[in-house]
Amino acid sequence: MEGKQTEIAALGEFGLIDRLTKDIELKNTSSLKGVGDDCAVMEYKDTDVLVSTDLLVEGIHFDLTYVPLKHLGYKAAVVNFSDIYAMNGHPRQITVSLAISKRFTVEHIEALYSGIRLACEIYGVDLVGGDTTSSRAGLVISITCIGDAPRDRIVYRSGAKDTDLICVSGDLGSAYMGLQLLEREKVASAGQADFQPQFQGKEYLIERQLKPEARRDVIEALEKEGIVPTSMMDISDGLSSELLHICKASNVGCRVYEDRIPIDYQTALMAEELNMNLVTAAMNGGEDYELLFTVPLHAHEDIKKIPGIKVIGHITKPELGCALITRDGNEMTIRAQGWNALLEEAQADSATSAPPQSETAKTGDKTEAGDSKAEA
Amino acid sequence: MEGKQTEIAALGEFGLIDRLTKDIELKNTSSLKGVGDDCAVMEYKDTDVLVSTDLLVEGIHFDLTYVPLKHLGYKAAVVNFSDIYAMNGHPRQITVSLAISKRFTVEHIEALYSGIRLACEIYGVDLVGGDTTSSRAGLVISITCIGDAPRDRIVYRSGAKDTDLICVSGDLGSAYMGLQLLEREKVASAGQADFQPQFQGKEYLIERQLKPEARRDVIEALEKEGIVPTSMMDISDGLSSELLHICKASNVGCRVYEDRIPIDYQTALMAEELNMNLVTAAMNGGEDYELLFTVPLHAHEDIKKIPGIKVIGHITKPELGCALITRDGNEMTIRAQGWNALLEEAQADSATSAPPQSETAKTGDKTEAGDSKAEA
Repeated sequence: MEGKQTEIAALGEFGLIDRLTKDIELKNTSSLKGVGDDCAVMEYKDTDVLVSTDLLVEGIHFDLTYVPLKHLGYKAAVVNFSDIYAMNGHPRQITVSLAISKRFTVEHIEALYSGIRLACEIYGVDLVGGDTTSSRAGLVISITCIGDAPRDRIVYRSGAKDTDLICVSGDLGSAYMGLQLLEREKVASAGQADFQPQFQGKEYLIERQLKPEARRDVIEALEKEGIVPTSMMDISDGLSSELLHICKASNVGCRVYEDRIPIDYQTALMAEELNMNLVTAAMNGGEDYELLFTVPLHAHEDIKKIPGIKVIGHITKPELGCALITRDGNEMTIRAQGWNALLEEAQADSATSAPPQSETAKTGDKTEAGDSKAEA
Repeated sequence: MEGKQTEIAALGEFGLIDRLTKDIELKNTSSLKGVGDDCAVMEYKDTDVLVSTDLLVEGIHFDLTYVPLKHLGYKAAVVNFSDIYAMNGHPRQITVSLAISKRFTVEHIEALYSGIRLACEIYGVDLVGGDTTSSRAGLVISITCIGDAPRDRIVYRSGAKDTDLICVSGDLGSAYMGLQLLEREKVASAGQADFQPQFQGKEYLIERQLKPEARRDVIEALEKEGIVPTSMMDISDGLSSELLHICKASNVGCRVYEDRIPIDYQTALMAEELNMNLVTAAMNGGEDYELLFTVPLHAHEDIKKIPGIKVIGHITKPELGCALITRDGNEMTIRAQGWNALLEEAQADSATSAPPQSETAKTGDKTEAGDSKAEA
């Protein structure tokens, strides 16, 4: 970052918070009191309250070598909004807690906050509180999002029923391919001062990775069409993993068709360039933040009215298990491979024929190779 | 920690979460859905919703050399409850996010969680969600607490009025002295395998530091006596700092009397032993988690009925500023020294005559000496 840099010590914690949160206006009627007291205060008389929380750790969830701080702030907020939409609700407030190591300046944190505040503005969310402290190693961002929905519209993971249609919004695998591209250019740039990364024609992949959007439009379209999904999740860990969550919570099985999985042209090109299995990327690549949901069979005609929604399969009885039907008609058992092990498996024949590998790498011993995009 | 140790990788993220959150029963009628979906779901038809959040970072907020993980979990939860009580509300739900480095085992995290769950049980709070991820450096704990209060009972910092009485619960400075004691014994123990720390007769100080309690009893007593404070905060950064917050938010001044500040006998002995100024410790030592509040003058008789509440001074017009009246009748301007700079000032003549020093050390350049108890 260029320009004037101010040490955080020059402002102090309270001075920094004042600077970051000045001019914040509360826009939602549910927001009664924001930053500046022991608690934020809200009113939810007529709707149920939804709460979701996410913890992002430098070196695990993001790599500041290629992630601009403003984008990071935007994404950190949006992924929380996505959890609220995944319940068929609307995000209303967030709290933002930061642990900051001493290599960050006031201007760095302002850039991060400008992304968070931009996301709040676009999605109509109020920033109502948080905590700011120091850290010995890197940046930690913890965001909690509060939202709401009328009780009869809240959608859990557990409501999918036999014969329901399985739908996804947008396309899958592009954020993961964007990450691969950023990682490749990071390696290529090592030690070169004037390095120019090669992103031409691949801007969509970069944007999907660095500046994802939450699917408010889908939630609004479902409401407009009078559709309440029977189950729903957002796709953060990969389609395979989320399908298994829904099937487990709903005690059902599923059949998903390989040729129905929505994949963008740039994703396909990039997979070929990197010699990676495309379906693997689409099934297990994470961070799409698309919505995965099920609707009753009779909603088929209504679903078709919503642009960008694709029916990729259907729910079955539990004893049939969860399977992907490949283009050649074979059934492959779906396993929660997780998007971390993808590179190791890039040469494997199929997304789903890889050895069973649950998300054990997410915490603990395999920390560095685990939850880390940077290392994936 | 002794006994069987299980690597977190052996369970995986979802396996770990299952193990930590199994058997959790939701007890509050406001808790509709807990762990296991994209969001927790709550109902708050008749009361306003209060939200508070705290981020605790290893090496900054806690030192695992002498803080047992179960105590750490208990304290991390309780300090969040304290923020809700400080609004005159009741905590109802928490979400718990953890970033865990690979030196921690499943049993370590179970110990941490057992403390969190014990606090929840004692204070009647439901654990409804969270996030678990890996960390490259140490343990990070982010807790968000949701509570509620009827609108006409919520107490902000901003309601103090001229002539109001200033009250505090319990005693001050003991948690800070407990920290000094723990630090002293840590230094003394360096390199000695069989070291026995010297805590005899000082158990109260250790307990105040390692296992603080939130003052639910005070909130209940105020309700029973029909008293709604005009302003309130919990004392986490030290009495001086919190008094200035209330006076700034309320646009008033204050007079506090040195001889009215409640100090425990063990605190006084320890200050003498360490050659530290006792009033400095009581005014600026942090982590007391007592309640500081103001009531109208006419509530004086009612306040006297509540055990353990002490009137330490009164609110004034803003132009009179904020001052401590010393035992010899002098007026010392109150400054937010913060409890971090205390050791440097231990030899100073008075708690309040030290040079102006705001909490600039909390973040940024002075990270290590800043927000860190371990370094204080």
